[in-house]
Amino acid sequence: MKYVRFRDPAGAIRRGEYDDGTVHFADESYGLEDEAIDILPPSEPSKVVCIGRNYADHADEMGSDVPDRPLLFLKPPNTLASYGDTVTVPAGKERIDHEAELGVVIGEQCRHVSEADAMDVVEGFTCVNDVSNRDDQRQEQNWVRGKAFDGAAPIGPVLATPEEVPADAAVRSRINGELKQDGSRAQLIFSIPELIAEITTYMTLEPGDVIATGTPEGVGPLEDGDTVEIEVEGVGTLEHSVRVP
Amino acid sequence: MKYVRFRDPAGAIRRGEYDDGTVHFADESYGLEDEAIDILPPSEPSKVVCIGRNYADHADEMGSDVPDRPLLFLKPPNTLASYGDTVTVPAGKERIDHEAELGVVIGEQCRHVSEADAMDVVEGFTCVNDVSNRDDQRQEQNWVRGKAFDGAAPIGPVLATPEEVPADAAVRSRINGELKQDGSRAQLIFSIPELIAEITTYMTLEPGDVIATGTPEGVGPLEDGDTVEIEVEGVGTLEHSVRVP
Repeated sequence: MKYVRFRDPAGAIRRGEYDDGTVHFADESYGLEDEAIDILPPSEPSKVVCIGRNYADHADEMGSDVPDRPLLFLKPPNTLASYGDTVTVPAGKERIDHEAELGVVIGEQCRHVSEADAMDVVEGFTCVNDVSNRDDQRQEQNWVRGKAFDGAAPIGPVLATPEEVPADAAVRSRINGELKQDGSRAQLIFSIPELIAEITTYMTLEPGDVIATGTPEGVGPLEDGDTVEIEVEGVGTLEHSVRVP
Repeated sequence: MKYVRFRDPAGAIRRGEYDDGTVHFADESYGLEDEAIDILPPSEPSKVVCIGRNYADHADEMGSDVPDRPLLFLKPPNTLASYGDTVTVPAGKERIDHEAELGVVIGEQCRHVSEADAMDVVEGFTCVNDVSNRDDQRQEQNWVRGKAFDGAAPIGPVLATPEEVPADAAVRSRINGELKQDGSRAQLIFSIPELIAEITTYMTLEPGDVIATGTPEGVGPLEDGDTVEIEVEGVGTLEHSVRVP
């Protein structure tokens, strides 16, 4: 199953079934591009827990080693943006990058989840762009200016239940139609169950919380007016544009 | 004015006026220790933005330099705990520390706030314990296991409006009644308006969001069964206990 959350023409927030470009709720149907509706993030996370350096080829392109346990960082709700949004990035920076990621949407409140039980707490998968302000990220102990600015987590539009997404699902980005990243879920250094077990050793996850599982090689700069597409095979494509003020 | 948020005997969430140990709402009054009510955090933050090394004497005791701009890190809502709670810290750690802090509660949604206008977005002040798991904090790029575990942000119980809190308000901790930290708001390296201006350059703050302004020297370990008091002059005292599993 696939779902899309949206604000309907009356202003009510709905979650409709998604099928081949069309969102269905009750007896109404809408296209994703229908101007009468607003596409919303697939959930309302209290936090997005992000994973750094979870693909060896990306760690290498950043001049970093692969960590011996998951590198965690946080994006609060202010970072969320949706399908079709124009993300305004921080002003005056040399380098703001895209990072295509497979997002895991949590389905139930949980803590101390074993790897064996981890998939039971997953509602589904979505697309995330872990937008990264390298100027500040490189200078900070904690990546707050670098990773937690407003709009730093475009997400969605589709939540696909786990069986929709193959174990080797492609994770891709395109900028203005040009392929930039082309990785696979199979390349994750720490698997989704390993990530859930590690995170919930320390933190309770809430329904709607998102784990952004890291990005493959090929990250690169965003410019004013760029159109970004983040594709996860089996989920669909997140599209948004970029404004550099 | 001082306020305390609580769950009343009927289960309703109320914010009452607080006066010398008693919470008043409509025609009811309760003591803080009244078992018929549950004291809640003074607000429902979407994020707690924390400041590291904002007192020179604490930076020195940690073997760190004073940063040239505020060191930011994040505590998500899973970290919240309240007056009277027993905080269960992560298991198997050598060193979990208390850090007494002045907390700033934001009163309105805001971004790009100037230093001159910053106090207009402050609803009031409260007490925060920035509970810190040093074992992991020392090993992590981002302080997530170290600072964002469940219960890592006991907060409250009182929200005091700004005029209640002197510019040189004492910020203290006591463990089992023994004074451990005794700093002053006047020692903040980056002032509250400077912090608000810097944070809102990057992030929208929401009503109820909290800025934890850093801790003075004297941090130290917590043990199973400890009683912690965090006092901010003009606000009051946050008390909670500690469980090491």
